[in-house]
Amino acid sequence: MRSPILDYLDSIIATTEHVDSGSTADYIPELAAADPTRAAIALCTSNGTVYASGDADHEFSIQSMSKPFAYALAIEDHGLEYVLDRIGVEPSGDAFNELSLDPETGKPRNPMINAGAITTHSLINSEGEKTAVDRMLEYFGDLADRPIRVDEAVANSELATAHRNLGLAYLLHGSGALPADPTESVTGYIRQCAASVTVSDLALMAATLANGGVQPKTGKQLLCRRTNRHLLSVMASCGMYDAAGNWLTTVGIPAKSGVAGGIIGVLPGQIGVAVFSPRLDAHGNSARGVAMMELLSEDMGLHLMEATRPSRSSLRETQLVSLVDGTEATIYVLQGDLVLSSIESLVQEIVTHPPRTDLVVFDMSRVDEVMPVAERTSSETAAKLIEEGYRIIVVDPEGTVENFADSHGRTIERWTPEQLSDAVR
Amino acid sequence: MRSPILDYLDSIIATTEHVDSGSTADYIPELAAADPTRAAIALCTSNGTVYASGDADHEFSIQSMSKPFAYALAIEDHGLEYVLDRIGVEPSGDAFNELSLDPETGKPRNPMINAGAITTHSLINSEGEKTAVDRMLEYFGDLADRPIRVDEAVANSELATAHRNLGLAYLLHGSGALPADPTESVTGYIRQCAASVTVSDLALMAATLANGGVQPKTGKQLLCRRTNRHLLSVMASCGMYDAAGNWLTTVGIPAKSGVAGGIIGVLPGQIGVAVFSPRLDAHGNSARGVAMMELLSEDMGLHLMEATRPSRSSLRETQLVSLVDGTEATIYVLQGDLVLSSIESLVQEIVTHPPRTDLVVFDMSRVDEVMPVAERTSSETAAKLIEEGYRIIVVDPEGTVENFADSHGRTIERWTPEQLSDAVR
Amino acid sequence: MRSPILDYLDSIIATTEHVDSGSTADYIPELAAADPTRAAIALCTSNGTVYASGDADHEFSIQSMSKPFAYALAIEDHGLEYVLDRIGVEPSGDAFNELSLDPETGKPRNPMINAGAITTHSLINSEGEKTAVDRMLEYFGDLADRPIRVDEAVANSELATAHRNLGLAYLLHGSGALPADPTESVTGYIRQCAASVTVSDLALMAATLANGGVQPKTGKQLLCRRTNRHLLSVMASCGMYDAAGNWLTTVGIPAKSGVAGGIIGVLPGQIGVAVFSPRLDAHGNSARGVAMMELLSEDMGLHLMEATRPSRSSLRETQLVSLVDGTEATIYVLQGDLVLSSIESLVQEIVTHPPRTDLVVFDMSRVDEVMPVAERTSSETAAKLIEEGYRIIVVDPEGTVENFADSHGRTIERWTPEQLSDAVR
Amino acid sequence: MRSPILDYLDSIIATTEHVDSGSTADYIPELAAADPTRAAIALCTSNGTVYASGDADHEFSIQSMSKPFAYALAIEDHGLEYVLDRIGVEPSGDAFNELSLDPETGKPRNPMINAGAITTHSLINSEGEKTAVDRMLEYFGDLADRPIRVDEAVANSELATAHRNLGLAYLLHGSGALPADPTESVTGYIRQCAASVTVSDLALMAATLANGGVQPKTGKQLLCRRTNRHLLSVMASCGMYDAAGNWLTTVGIPAKSGVAGGIIGVLPGQIGVAVFSPRLDAHGNSARGVAMMELLSEDMGLHLMEATRPSRSSLRETQLVSLVDGTEATIYVLQGDLVLSSIESLVQEIVTHPPRTDLVVFDMSRVDEVMPVAERTSSETAAKLIEEGYRIIVVDPEGTVENFADSHGRTIERWTPEQLSDAVR
Repeated sequence: MRSPILDYLDSIIATTEHVDSGSTADYIPELAAADPTRAAIALCTSNGTVYASGDADHEFSIQSMSKPFAYALAIEDHGLEYVLDRIGVEPSGDAFNELSLDPETGKPRNPMINAGAITTHSLINSEGEKTAVDRMLEYFGDLADRPIRVDEAVANSELATAHRNLGLAYLLHGSGALPADPTESVTGYIRQCAASVTVSDLALMAATLANGGVQPKTGKQLLCRRTNRHLLSVMASCGMYDAAGNWLTTVGIPAKSGVAGGIIGVLPGQIGVAVFSPRLDAHGNSARGVAMMELLSEDMGLHLMEATRPSRSSLRETQLVSLVDGTEATIYVLQGDLVLSSIESLVQEIVTHPPRTDLVVFDMSRVDEVMPVAERTSSETAAKLIEEGYRIIVVDPEGTVENFADSHGRTIERWTPEQLSDAVR
Repeated sequence: MRSPILDYLDSIIATTEHVDSGSTADYIPELAAADPTRAAIALCTSNGTVYASGDADHEFSIQSMSKPFAYALAIEDHGLEYVLDRIGVEPSGDAFNELSLDPETGKPRNPMINAGAITTHSLINSEGEKTAVDRMLEYFGDLADRPIRVDEAVANSELATAHRNLGLAYLLHGSGALPADPTESVTGYIRQCAASVTVSDLALMAATLANGGVQPKTGKQLLCRRTNRHLLSVMASCGMYDAAGNWLTTVGIPAKSGVAGGIIGVLPGQIGVAVFSPRLDAHGNSARGVAMMELLSEDMGLHLMEATRPSRSSLRETQLVSLVDGTEATIYVLQGDLVLSSIESLVQEIVTHPPRTDLVVFDMSRVDEVMPVAERTSSETAAKLIEEGYRIIVVDPEGTVENFADSHGRTIERWTPEQLSDAVR
Repeated sequence: MRSPILDYLDSIIATTEHVDSGSTADYIPELAAADPTRAAIALCTSNGTVYASGDADHEFSIQSMSKPFAYALAIEDHGLEYVLDRIGVEPSGDAFNELSLDPETGKPRNPMINAGAITTHSLINSEGEKTAVDRMLEYFGDLADRPIRVDEAVANSELATAHRNLGLAYLLHGSGALPADPTESVTGYIRQCAASVTVSDLALMAATLANGGVQPKTGKQLLCRRTNRHLLSVMASCGMYDAAGNWLTTVGIPAKSGVAGGIIGVLPGQIGVAVFSPRLDAHGNSARGVAMMELLSEDMGLHLMEATRPSRSSLRETQLVSLVDGTEATIYVLQGDLVLSSIESLVQEIVTHPPRTDLVVFDMSRVDEVMPVAERTSSETAAKLIEEGYRIIVVDPEGTVENFADSHGRTIERWTPEQLSDAVR
Repeated sequence: MRSPILDYLDSIIATTEHVDSGSTADYIPELAAADPTRAAIALCTSNGTVYASGDADHEFSIQSMSKPFAYALAIEDHGLEYVLDRIGVEPSGDAFNELSLDPETGKPRNPMINAGAITTHSLINSEGEKTAVDRMLEYFGDLADRPIRVDEAVANSELATAHRNLGLAYLLHGSGALPADPTESVTGYIRQCAASVTVSDLALMAATLANGGVQPKTGKQLLCRRTNRHLLSVMASCGMYDAAGNWLTTVGIPAKSGVAGGIIGVLPGQIGVAVFSPRLDAHGNSARGVAMMELLSEDMGLHLMEATRPSRSSLRETQLVSLVDGTEATIYVLQGDLVLSSIESLVQEIVTHPPRTDLVVFDMSRVDEVMPVAERTSSETAAKLIEEGYRIIVVDPEGTVENFADSHGRTIERWTPEQLSDAVR
């Protein structure tokens, strides 16, 4: 049986076939020569399964989609503060190839415009024999879980026409914003951009960002959690250049496009997506790629601001029961993920209607996951009840609140579901 | 028992007491005279419970925090397209009181800067006797669930020093971007900004946005879902003026600040928050308010890009059982929210390991909610199985997949949990 | 006999008849309705004779050509330093109706753009019953040597559509650059601009500037010499808005245009000119007016950088003669204007070939005028000769070097031309 | 006897000795090391005599003072139109090292900022073996009338730190504004700037510009008259970078400064000046150099807008005489330079008071020079008189109106002064 998910991706390719406006990047001969009719889409879940449709095996250069990953590597090399001292995080409102230095600090506005990306590249350490480009390719390889190499034809084509980037680099160097050698920085940056990938590679790379920095197939933590969060924020505000606000309102996915026609998108906690089609619109983004992303976002409710629903109360029901031994007990049956907004209804119930039995049971059999602040708040609630003389029993077969304890560090009494079952019978 | 959530808010007030930098807004006499030591915080859950600490009953003027709500009302009055034709959604990179017109279209860059907000106000319809300001106050009242009135002293103080806003309005009028009368528009806008609120009011207003546009106490749909999503996107990219990128990376909550010292924040699907303290930093945001928001975001994991966890597989377990009548059956036990990224593992399992029994049961007793694309994908999976000769039974006590049907529209066979229980026993 | 100068002006009107591009100012109804085929030219010499051709009696509003005169009046009222503290003198590179504040000082860039001109108007003092506008009109009257009044229809038409100027004024007021009331300042400025003039009036006004600030007909000093020089410099660099550089290279005359279709030009020391034709080019300057000015500049060699010729040596000839009484004498015959560059050749001659006779005569009968530095240098030369034992006699029938004295203050011996004549005979 | 002009220059050096603010150019090591106490001044008249004081023999690099001469050479090579198509003439309002492209045309704003100067250099043709730099040096040599060579130490020092200029050049190349190779253009430009000169050289070079393009010592026409006029206009509006307006109002001389501490100034038709002192002010101009120029301008009345005086009437007197033969004659005695504004009074006299004798004599013995438009106007006046029956005789011993003829091409009767003398006697 063919996966219905593949059918769905096929339908996106088919539905967007009429989008044939725009043209291939004209300032890099090798890109200008790309077949404009190609199109591909891939999607990768948080467990690492990749679904792809269209020209999914076609390799093209990663271009500016390399920028977020280079930024991540620079942060991993030097720490966030060091990098923030050199490159800003504010949207520029300018085209990608403008200098866009912050007038007060002289820093490139953000790492997603070329000036910031060249500076970013120069911050990647070399290690022994390995150059910054080698390390970048190795990092791409770890993200995509296969070796990634430079497309030398593309790299050479770009190097021959890299005047604007050289101009930016020399100006950055002249103003002190780029301490490294300008020509070397641009050469390295261009080779980084010429890394050859497929939509499937990109979907896996994006899925790593969706997955809190953990590559979903290999389980390697390739970005620390904070770097990952920071990176997604920067992609959300600066990833689509001068159309950032429009992208965020309509598609609503942190994303990055490349001039070869690719776009990656990340829905935190859910999936990574990648699309490809070489014709570019006026903003330099793939025209058909944007159409595919819009469709995906709409169909799948992927918009960052689209709360699937107000989070449900964690309190499923309150039962007042007589136990087998004749004791009266109040049982709070909890459910779902415990976050502050859901745990609040439980706390509220207990505060306004204190249990009328001495014995209080928290049944967490249906609980999925517990956020720190929810754990803290609920354990403090339990502690307060104990102080007021209640006897508290926790039923937690999945061990979601293993550290659940009162404020004096005393462990709270626990039952298995069977014990509860037997007691209630 | 005092709620631990209140204890937590108290601790935020206490922890930020040392933040006494900045000064009250100096260009509006009435605001300059505010008591700089005041501080308040409030939080409202999606069911409408408000928790507040500090000077929670102190009223202050809503100022620029009125902008998102005015924008919402203008969109409700005219439709999104009409408003987008007149006001952009791109971050300006300029201070809030710059003209910041888009050089190509001549539109104000976004509705969160003053130029855009004055234009926004002018788009609010009057209705019979009700002026635009009357309607705005009524809307504030619906959002806060209590009558909201203008602080006339603040309004008069601002009107007397509204030179810059008058300047913007006349320039907008001169360029055609503001067809309405400039003086009237500014007067109305200033009265809108002078609406008097508490942090509790603001938390409820923010919670409405967190709640998909539904006021959590009254249940009224005050913004349609799409407007709400659009509004949150604009707040995320333009809400904190020229520090938008920095705010998104560090706090990561769509937010809006006001010059009287308030800040509201919205975490979609979860909570609305509001803080207040009159001293402003260099960006015109409440200095202590920013500190409180940072603490909240950090403690509570509220950052938009902070995926609580990779979403779990919807497939809890696969059981191969002999029914009472001797039939062999494959039971897929599903759990949690069904979104594309979670349903995928079920589909994947079925595709790669087709059921080895003719009878296939989907047990959805533990399922919470089902997204459209997940429903579509899983119903197509079921349809494919039926076509291949399988007998499909759905156990769905909560009715989460009521429209579950095969692609020929035939309803799928359903069992109650008790039927399943009896059959398996 | 008709003056050949009038014939020449007629020929300019005729030659430019084909220039019918552009259109009348569209944002002021009263100006938009002007007859686009009208054309006029006038020229005024430094003795106040006016030559005019075309629609020379047609009155139109002075508009921005009022700016230099208002600037002059403000300087006369407050002194140059006071005005320079409030309004800059740098070209803006922006259109005339941009705010164009200096980013460092917050001052309007120059008095020729609207923001600077509104501020300028607000600096004109009222005097008892006389408002600033009254004084401005009186000043125009002194310059044109006839009463000048406001065209109320034009003033009202502009006041009704003065949104952009009001916007600028409120922004200036808000930023502190315009302490006066914004609406009053704009109203006054617009009435100043609506003053009704003919090309003949304007030519006389311009001639006053050409004449070092002295009205050539009445002989009144209407601007002090330094203000006049300063004003011409500002007109040269800022008078033609964003086309200042192009104007200076091609026409090369300090000038100012008005949106009703007039342009005035000043050639220091020579003439004032004015042209009129209502159709405006893309820069807001009269299209046919520019053509007329270009022709004038070309034909008459009026370009500021067009040195009529390298200045001639002041030393016409050196004569060695025997006087009637047998004395040998060296006679230096001087000519023309004595400026440093011309006197230098005399000094040079004396330094390299000291007179070989004890008696030295400077014959200044052919000398026209003597600049201070030339007088100083030549008197020091004479003093040095006296110290070296020479007897010096000056023949100066026109009294051009009345203060000619040696460095000890001793008066130098003088002869009349007749005395010289008799002595030489 | 020492020339009083040298004494005067000495006094300028002495008077400005206290001006010791600013510091040497810090971004070029070789310039940073200059002796900051050096100072020199030189002045060159239109006959080529150079007066110099201070460190007049000290050689320093020409730097940006090379820009006007390179611009002249490019225009001589390609014609003005070709160069105007590639480089604008508008002041930029930016610092000298900003890119400052015209937003509409993409051209560098003017040839005096670095971007425009690099493009200018690239337009200088090579000729056979001679590179553009060779030709530039040869041109400098022609202007200074001695061989000029590159200071290799300065050139190397600048090449090593030319990042900003390389940045500009690559951006220009990338945008198509600089077709030539960026590195070669910058290398050539830097060598051009490293040409080693003294203030005496510079004064001679400036004097060539003052002299209508004719080198005053050699008499070679090094720039055509129109190029010279154009160049001076560009220097006036763009020569002093972002302080152009301030310079024009206070000093009022077309000028150009160099970062090594030199400034040249040109007063059309009179003199060229050059000053030198290495410490620079905030605008990058020599601080003491500016002070020296201000003093010169003030003392010598060199301000461009400082009309020495309203030009005198050309009509010295009108004599009504009886000739020896009994004929009555009207003699118009003319004087000075005949320009339109002076000839006008003669024409006016004749028009309003037609001669009452048949014989009319124009005595031009005291006339210095005649401008074309004056010649045309006066010859037409004569022609009109002939047509009305008058007999016209011209006395023109200096041949100033050799082509004087009536409108039918008939030569007008001429007398020598002696003939007139004899006739009147």
